[in-house]
Amino acid sequence: MNEIKGFKYSENKSVKDLVNNFSSIGFQASHIKQAVDIIKKMKKDKATIILTFTSNMVSSGLREIFAELCKLKFVNAIVTGVGSVEEDLMKSKKPFILGSFNLNDKELHQTGVNRIGNILVENSHYEGLEDNLLPFFEHLLKMQNEKGKMLGPSEIIFELGKTINDENSILHWASKNNIPIFCPAILDGAFGLQLYYFKQEHPEFGIDVTADMKAEADLILNAEKTGGIILGGGFAKHHAIGMNIVREGFDYAVYVTTAEAYDGSLSGASTSEAVSWSKIKEDANTVVVHSDATIAFPLIFLSMFE
Amino acid sequence: MNEIKGFKYSENKSVKDLVNNFSSIGFQASHIKQAVDIIKKMKKDKATIILTFTSNMVSSGLREIFAELCKLKFVNAIVTGVGSVEEDLMKSKKPFILGSFNLNDKELHQTGVNRIGNILVENSHYEGLEDNLLPFFEHLLKMQNEKGKMLGPSEIIFELGKTINDENSILHWASKNNIPIFCPAILDGAFGLQLYYFKQEHPEFGIDVTADMKAEADLILNAEKTGGIILGGGFAKHHAIGMNIVREGFDYAVYVTTAEAYDGSLSGASTSEAVSWSKIKEDANTVVVHSDATIAFPLIFLSMFE
Amino acid sequence: MNEIKGFKYSENKSVKDLVNNFSSIGFQASHIKQAVDIIKKMKKDKATIILTFTSNMVSSGLREIFAELCKLKFVNAIVTGVGSVEEDLMKSKKPFILGSFNLNDKELHQTGVNRIGNILVENSHYEGLEDNLLPFFEHLLKMQNEKGKMLGPSEIIFELGKTINDENSILHWASKNNIPIFCPAILDGAFGLQLYYFKQEHPEFGIDVTADMKAEADLILNAEKTGGIILGGGFAKHHAIGMNIVREGFDYAVYVTTAEAYDGSLSGASTSEAVSWSKIKEDANTVVVHSDATIAFPLIFLSMFE
Amino acid sequence: MNEIKGFKYSENKSVKDLVNNFSSIGFQASHIKQAVDIIKKMKKDKATIILTFTSNMVSSGLREIFAELCKLKFVNAIVTGVGSVEEDLMKSKKPFILGSFNLNDKELHQTGVNRIGNILVENSHYEGLEDNLLPFFEHLLKMQNEKGKMLGPSEIIFELGKTINDENSILHWASKNNIPIFCPAILDGAFGLQLYYFKQEHPEFGIDVTADMKAEADLILNAEKTGGIILGGGFAKHHAIGMNIVREGFDYAVYVTTAEAYDGSLSGASTSEAVSWSKIKEDANTVVVHSDATIAFPLIFLSMFE
Repeated sequence: MNEIKGFKYSENKSVKDLVNNFSSIGFQASHIKQAVDIIKKMKKDKATIILTFTSNMVSSGLREIFAELCKLKFVNAIVTGVGSVEEDLMKSKKPFILGSFNLNDKELHQTGVNRIGNILVENSHYEGLEDNLLPFFEHLLKMQNEKGKMLGPSEIIFELGKTINDENSILHWASKNNIPIFCPAILDGAFGLQLYYFKQEHPEFGIDVTADMKAEADLILNAEKTGGIILGGGFAKHHAIGMNIVREGFDYAVYVTTAEAYDGSLSGASTSEAVSWSKIKEDANTVVVHSDATIAFPLIFLSMFE
Repeated sequence: MNEIKGFKYSENKSVKDLVNNFSSIGFQASHIKQAVDIIKKMKKDKATIILTFTSNMVSSGLREIFAELCKLKFVNAIVTGVGSVEEDLMKSKKPFILGSFNLNDKELHQTGVNRIGNILVENSHYEGLEDNLLPFFEHLLKMQNEKGKMLGPSEIIFELGKTINDENSILHWASKNNIPIFCPAILDGAFGLQLYYFKQEHPEFGIDVTADMKAEADLILNAEKTGGIILGGGFAKHHAIGMNIVREGFDYAVYVTTAEAYDGSLSGASTSEAVSWSKIKEDANTVVVHSDATIAFPLIFLSMFE
Repeated sequence: MNEIKGFKYSENKSVKDLVNNFSSIGFQASHIKQAVDIIKKMKKDKATIILTFTSNMVSSGLREIFAELCKLKFVNAIVTGVGSVEEDLMKSKKPFILGSFNLNDKELHQTGVNRIGNILVENSHYEGLEDNLLPFFEHLLKMQNEKGKMLGPSEIIFELGKTINDENSILHWASKNNIPIFCPAILDGAFGLQLYYFKQEHPEFGIDVTADMKAEADLILNAEKTGGIILGGGFAKHHAIGMNIVREGFDYAVYVTTAEAYDGSLSGASTSEAVSWSKIKEDANTVVVHSDATIAFPLIFLSMFE
Repeated sequence: MNEIKGFKYSENKSVKDLVNNFSSIGFQASHIKQAVDIIKKMKKDKATIILTFTSNMVSSGLREIFAELCKLKFVNAIVTGVGSVEEDLMKSKKPFILGSFNLNDKELHQTGVNRIGNILVENSHYEGLEDNLLPFFEHLLKMQNEKGKMLGPSEIIFELGKTINDENSILHWASKNNIPIFCPAILDGAFGLQLYYFKQEHPEFGIDVTADMKAEADLILNAEKTGGIILGGGFAKHHAIGMNIVREGFDYAVYVTTAEAYDGSLSGASTSEAVSWSKIKEDANTVVVHSDATIAFPLIFLSMFE
């Protein structure tokens, strides 16, 4: 039985100590501590860990933390949007810049700057992307011709990761360490737009989304236990919990979210709702942390290693 | 210059009258009135209208309203998740039931009931889905063989709509009236799970997501003006505004959302942020309505016809 | 057992019909219908009804609706902030104006315009307030001297209401119909600032907040049943539910809120949490509507009369 | 120009280092770093610092952190609700306990346990409060008689603080260090309920809320600069920014909030909106951190000392 109690100022308090204290703070602070404890348990239990995140988190500085998790083989698979894929690639060439939420968007537009919350991306980032993707698509088409069939999204991302030579890249480490990145909507971004231009010249090129289904199912069915670290909502969240229906649900699940349940959205749905669906097991260890992931996840990350 | 002023009780006040009064109420009520005015303008201006929604809205009673919009040819294209597709099909057989947000999810699980917020779906709904999808997949495979190439998601959904004989079905009317339904992550749901079983028997079957790209681009590039009715977030929102980059952005956009901008998510991003990206034009007419769509959209729907 | 099902377009659908349909829509739409049903029950049951709201709702067009509820003697007491009191008075002289959430606040400041969300109030409104309050304070001081004791907040507001000759005024009708307005923080606004200047000349003037306690307790203790219509959070909500502890809680409670429970705030606390406190009865009829009140309350208001 | 970039895992990273890195993370993480920088500036500039918080934060472990800030004389005044006052007193006798957001509130009620989010308070805490308050009210009545006039809320809280002998108490240190605690709604809680019983025996006892106005005005008018650390919303926030109108606004303001602006509420109002009101200066340094304060404020607290 935890007593609620704060702590005194100490000049060099470590993040680990702070998060330990969080169990006595209450509200969402105590949920952060529970998230850390659950992730430690899934690791100790050798669970197959699936990490999901939305692409704005790769726009943020969480990108390098996700890369670190791939480097350390802490996670076994990733589900995310194609924005994460293309921004990881763009950042391997040139960083994004901190701006503000209150800039004049018409002026930004006129000067070729795109805004993601308080993060700024220049048009030149996208032009660089184009230079990278065109030869990459040629490579993919060659592979398609050699194999005699279309590739699936995770194969394409695996190939792309091999081309990225950046120690801070998620894709670099995922490819190096054979961590599949599932991306159920691979055309929903600049990657898709570039592919549209490429396909006009090469109408025979295609992407078969059904190609990933077996890899996803095998990952889940071969696991003794599964654990989910679900940052944000969207289809990345849905896909990860949905994949687990074939084994009656996750054994462990940590959600970090800014969405609420009252509108019936999947993004805001609780871990409890997922139990009704066999997406999470009845006796699973779960917690929902209500927080912007840019605050919560660095705290969790620095505390979750044994 | 609108004065802020409420209204008196009148027994049989119509929704249209109420929404007209909303311009004098302020806060989000006035945004609902602005949404109606913008949608009227896009219609008057003969804009190509793209409607997006998340699948929980099809779980709700908004399904029949979306079907009505397709029947009336009010919208020219839809972007949504595969949950919308499969639930529209399931509901054509048997309705979902109103429950509560506070049910015991373990008990629901044990009795084969799945919860979406306060809406309940039985396992038998999904079993019925299976019965429908297996012969449908056979049909798709036959088409693939006849055409000598894989189908894209919107073609598949078009075919599915032709099989649904329900006046309340979105897909039924979309197919009847040639309104394309784009679904960038078509495997992210029970549809994908059934397809996984089907593909084990028929490994040659596939879905080429690049097949929809030309139809999407043509829709946008051939339009004089484009307008977006964007309900909720996720990739449905992203895809619709992203498609408009090729023509420098939507001319009109109405967002109805429960997500906020502070976490940098696409779901919470304002129409202003989209201007920086050429996803919405600098001089576009736009409004963001902060509300659960189950409240806001019926009000808008009943008021937006001339 | 309600089936989930939308409705067809009908040109002159009344608000009442729409809200009846809301029980079949799900999510927050169905909560609006439940709110209407609960309010009808509390009325039928002759419950003492306490209405609470935050002052921004009086800034909005809800002011005239609250006034109507007082005129019709639909509610038996009000709890709100002093902002409601002073803005009701100001609006009886000159209306507020609809603006936008995105105006330049520095420019507004330089031109003497104050912003409340998308509602604009001019400095001249406050100057008019000053003209009204000074003679009113003189009147209060005279009363204090005659009674030989300080007045309480509800007595002061009652006196103020008698001076307002506006059919759209909350205070006007509350005074006319003897509906007490409790205001536990009566100095927290322009009223307090003006009183500060007045008290520099008249240091003997005071306000005894304990003077209202008996009236509050009697209201609750003499009621057979009590019902709460709790719009928004803050101390207005807290005060109303706290008052009911002396009778083991409200019998009926409708919350309309934009706050969530995860931060442990009273504003976001559920009706269920209030049960643990004896602020709401265990078997009470309750619902929480998650919505901006400017949208939800007009719908409820137009539907809750028998 | 800050580049967006995460950081590597390091076993004993300090909170200060983490918060320094937050400027490169983006979204709300970077707002935490800005909050720290602004608080350092207000301190360096010798601003009169006003701290506000809602009472649920005192329910949480932030209580001891607020006490520390009073002990260190880091803040010059506090504005809060009476719940903070009574819970600080109760906790000096017996701690609150960590529970969960999902407990059965009827069972809690039947066992005499009250829930505040995931924090539990027993009825025995309140019975202890009663034992403390009755002699304290006797003391206040004696003071009222000696002075020949009623006390104001801040005087009462000052007296109460002198009775608390707990190094972890906010009131203890506030009284010791002459830090006024303003509480514009002092009866809105158990304190008020106890006082109601006391006043039935002692009808001459009263509290004159106007008694604090001069102290508040002097605090603001005598300051060279003022800074606000505004945690949460409600009247505590409103009162602090409203007090600053007499000097044309705060020079520095840090908001930590879970409320949003779209409903026009004061709780969700931005620092920018306050500029239009002269509650914050046009050229003030401000930031809004969107986060549960139990997560954000410990991070800020550990980083804001030079």
